[in-house]
Amino acid sequence: MNRLYHFPLSPFSRKVRLSLAEKRIEVELVEERYWEQDSDFLRRNPAGKVPVLRLGNKLLSESAAICEYLEETHPNPPLMPRDADSRFEVRRLVGWFDDKFYTECTQKLLGERVFRKVMGTGYPDSTNVKAGSRAMRLHLDYMTHLLEHRRWLAGNEMSLADFAAAAQLSCLDYISDVDWNRSEVLKDWYAKIKSRPAFRSLLADQVPGFLPPSHYANLDF
Amino acid sequence: MNRLYHFPLSPFSRKVRLSLAEKRIEVELVEERYWEQDSDFLRRNPAGKVPVLRLGNKLLSESAAICEYLEETHPNPPLMPRDADSRFEVRRLVGWFDDKFYTECTQKLLGERVFRKVMGTGYPDSTNVKAGSRAMRLHLDYMTHLLEHRRWLAGNEMSLADFAAAAQLSCLDYISDVDWNRSEVLKDWYAKIKSRPAFRSLLADQVPGFLPPSHYANLDF
Ligand SMILES: N[C@@H](CCC(=O)N[C@@H](CS)C(=O)NCC(=O)O)C(=O)O
Ligand SMILES: N[C@@H](CCC(=O)N[C@@H](CS)C(=O)NCC(=O)O)C(=O)O
Repeated sequence: MNRLYHFPLSPFSRKVRLSLAEKRIEVELVEERYWEQDSDFLRRNPAGKVPVLRLGNKLLSESAAICEYLEETHPNPPLMPRDADSRFEVRRLVGWFDDKFYTECTQKLLGERVFRKVMGTGYPDSTNVKAGSRAMRLHLDYMTHLLEHRRWLAGNEMSLADFAAAAQLSCLDYISDVDWNRSEVLKDWYAKIKSRPAFRSLLADQVPGFLPPSHYANLDF
Repeated sequence: MNRLYHFPLSPFSRKVRLSLAEKRIEVELVEERYWEQDSDFLRRNPAGKVPVLRLGNKLLSESAAICEYLEETHPNPPLMPRDADSRFEVRRLVGWFDDKFYTECTQKLLGERVFRKVMGTGYPDSTNVKAGSRAMRLHLDYMTHLLEHRRWLAGNEMSLADFAAAAQLSCLDYISDVDWNRSEVLKDWYAKIKSRPAFRSLLADQVPGFLPPSHYANLDF
């Protein structure tokens, strides 16, 4: 049986879950407390990070590499366009969300507000939280700017770029850190992606000690 | 004329420089003090990061997306294998070096020892430097482990994975932070990659105030 070692509020795990579900590849989800770095986990992925995907007899890590692999081995439905320019734009945005958005927003907000408590590493650092909120506004505005010109983030078709973005945003939405009133087009985009069957499992996630707000799982938020 | 906006000791810029040179795509190098975030630079790349490549009339950012684009549009010589499993391994390792190695080693060593001074943000934090040196040993051992089973990092052909790794290591070698005595196979691998014509421009880099050690540009180090 295929397995995904993941953590509920890990954005990189969520991105892979969305790709798997969209391509109807069934996996058993196994929650991994990756910060405990137990030896079985390190054997599966010496990087000590989630997600790790066991697909048949293969062990795969690094979410961007996993998504490209799924794209090449399970091309339907496609999550990447065909021409080089459009593929570039998808990958540029995946990089933007995996690197820039994650570092500037997710780590600063979710890292401080949730993971410190889950991992037992002290109280939130308010300087980080403030920097994260400030960065959020810039990122939401950038997404709005893109969506004013395109149906989906990287172009006119839904792609891995939308999954990379929604994976990050959905984690922050779990702790009410996304101001959906800031932009109508952004809210519309998120409503479209949230209503896909692939999103269901994300909306059912729970992290003990942190209850999601009622709008979190609501398709009509 | 094609242009690469870069910074000499930026590992992501170096990775792209290596791909461009290997594929014989000529570019003019323009040094960008990216931390000053001037408005022209932000117009070229709203992420405010180097590298940024102007290729014809296109402006490209995000090094992994750029390298994949070059691979698709200039397939010769190939820097990616053809089958999905081998491509996965290349991308996994590119992710490993761009994310894990960069965060654990490059940021902690180069960031503290060089960039604080260049950017004027104070003295090196010795806790970071120590953590970086400790992480270096683990990473060099992991690379050694890979190279004991393969000619190149991701398999038997040179690939983007080798460039991603060499880009990071070469920046740290500039400040003598790579212990080449730790592993014979690793040193052999680096000697092979260092002697490629594509590497020449990296070995000529200079950052004012920081002289590289004599072995840095020496092919026989
Ligand atoms: N580049 C990796 C990043 C994965 C990642 O950073 N995962 C976090 C959880 S969201 C993690 O496992 N962090 C542990 C660590 O960095 O040691 C990927 O895309 O899969
Ligand atoms: N994911 C980006 C990372 C590039 C990056 O972080 N570049 C550094 C210099 S080595 C930078 O410009 N940092 C400025 C910043 O993060 O604001 C890529 O692969 O191009």
